[in-house]
Amino acid sequence: MTQADTETVSEFSLRDIEAAAARIDGIARCTPLLESARLNDRLGGRLLVKAECLQHTGSFKFRGAYNRLAAMDPEVRARGILAYSSGNHAQGVARAAQLFGVPATIIMPRDAPAMKQRNTAEYGATIVLYDRHGESREDIGRRIAAEQGLTLVKPYDDPLIMAGQGTSGLECVRQCAGLGAVPDLALAPTGGGGLMAGFSTAMKAAFPDLRLYAVEPEGYDDTARSLQLGTRVANSATPASICDAIMTPEPGELTFPVNRHTLAGGLAVSDAEVRKAMADAFAELKIVVEPGGCVALAAVLSGRVPVAGMTVVVVASGGNVDPALFAEVLAQAA
Amino acid sequence: MTQADTETVSEFSLRDIEAAAARIDGIARCTPLLESARLNDRLGGRLLVKAECLQHTGSFKFRGAYNRLAAMDPEVRARGILAYSSGNHAQGVARAAQLFGVPATIIMPRDAPAMKQRNTAEYGATIVLYDRHGESREDIGRRIAAEQGLTLVKPYDDPLIMAGQGTSGLECVRQCAGLGAVPDLALAPTGGGGLMAGFSTAMKAAFPDLRLYAVEPEGYDDTARSLQLGTRVANSATPASICDAIMTPEPGELTFPVNRHTLAGGLAVSDAEVRKAMADAFAELKIVVEPGGCVALAAVLSGRVPVAGMTVVVVASGGNVDPALFAEVLAQAA
Repeated sequence: MTQADTETVSEFSLRDIEAAAARIDGIARCTPLLESARLNDRLGGRLLVKAECLQHTGSFKFRGAYNRLAAMDPEVRARGILAYSSGNHAQGVARAAQLFGVPATIIMPRDAPAMKQRNTAEYGATIVLYDRHGESREDIGRRIAAEQGLTLVKPYDDPLIMAGQGTSGLECVRQCAGLGAVPDLALAPTGGGGLMAGFSTAMKAAFPDLRLYAVEPEGYDDTARSLQLGTRVANSATPASICDAIMTPEPGELTFPVNRHTLAGGLAVSDAEVRKAMADAFAELKIVVEPGGCVALAAVLSGRVPVAGMTVVVVASGGNVDPALFAEVLAQAA
Repeated sequence: MTQADTETVSEFSLRDIEAAAARIDGIARCTPLLESARLNDRLGGRLLVKAECLQHTGSFKFRGAYNRLAAMDPEVRARGILAYSSGNHAQGVARAAQLFGVPATIIMPRDAPAMKQRNTAEYGATIVLYDRHGESREDIGRRIAAEQGLTLVKPYDDPLIMAGQGTSGLECVRQCAGLGAVPDLALAPTGGGGLMAGFSTAMKAAFPDLRLYAVEPEGYDDTARSLQLGTRVANSATPASICDAIMTPEPGELTFPVNRHTLAGGLAVSDAEVRKAMADAFAELKIVVEPGGCVALAAVLSGRVPVAGMTVVVVASGGNVDPALFAEVLAQAA
């Protein structure tokens, strides 16, 4: 670990997550930790699913967004918020801004799922569309932010965002204790790594022997490879994937040093494995999980991680999937 | 109210539900009370959804079944359990029997959803299929119970079943208090009336001004008509409906006197309204609700009940729906 990385890790700790938990208390939802007797039978282990798809705005992103806005200077916040996002951070920020009564501008790729675009607009945000393959959302964002005096709320590379997402881990610790469960393994979907940085910090503090794994879509395993190499590397191509929520180019500058410290490794799953896991979540857990939110469950149910005899926590991180795709996934599985 | 009805009511009270809550504590799941900012905006009110589809076995039925078995003499219980059910009570009883390590025989209609039949078998129960339109499940049940010394666990007309289902109401009272919500209206799916008897008793005890409504599928509005007439009447026909879970012939002998006491009335919804509500639950709440479990939500979202300016609780009572039907519902809505 480089000197810079060590310093970054020391700047983010359980105390940040506890402070975030106090800010979002009574506003974010304590999502259930679900369990299915039949899935346990199938795996020969105990599977606990943290259903963040049931969070307000349909993903964990609301936690970080609300925490970030809550910690802002009210006068700065009142001038307005800017964010770029393929959809879940967009909705989280738009809803948090709506709750604080401040304007939000969201920069979204033109090919983001229709549901995510519509919902973001319905939370009162102004949407600016861009071409994912031709334009830079960072450039567009910087220009608009400068012109209008808006504050950028980054999707993951911000300690307040990481801390907000980590409140899901604090809840999970309490819920495991309530079930008398000591998890051996925990897996979460990983894009930029904000959820994982917060979640793993909270879980590792309570369960020091816990092995945590980042799960990514095939072709977007930048975190897995970065963990192996000990330094951040980017994805070399941008193959097609149904996992729109976590098709990020590389691990975050602030999230990676944390995840390097807390994680045992990373692994990737195929779209086909994700589709099967979405159908299993439908049938056995009665929750709607979007592709990118289902990669950790897919890693377990596909057998990519041996879990027999173990207690395993997975985060189902979001549920914002267009009905036509979900119908197609179910029709294939039927 | 007749003398007999008065006596029956006095036999079932909040104390039964509290006793059930103690028996199922740590075994049944405290299901979340979900809320969607966008659904609230659409309705101009506050909608709180008790997500019993997230209960073990995918419906509230596990609560009553477990409470019934927990209260049995262990020697009698060990000889085995018999139940008849279109599927949700079947799964609840099969799973409760599995937890107690006792054999279960379940009599199911041949046209019950494939998922319900398969799941019931996977919980270790012996399934006996019958023809819904030609044979009497009660006759088959009596014969098998007598031959094998099994105890019949009725689907609703049993104070222990009603009390078990009522634990959902006790939870809901606590959850409303946690949200600072005092509901004006509450609606729940109603077949034989066991859920409603328990739920309404618990809710009415905490919120004396609450108006509660039973919701049924069109053509199966026996409870609505019985409440109007002040006496139990049966459905005259058995039209087709997608709401398999609540196509019951008439209100229960024990449940009706309770519901007559607690409910303001009943209303019926169409299959088309149910389909739309299932798609809304998918999109806005990220939960899988089966047709029969979605009638109360359908009554609110279709505008059959005016809710502007009010706080409304609905029970989403189950999520055991075949993927092909759910896919069809989503494809229609897309």
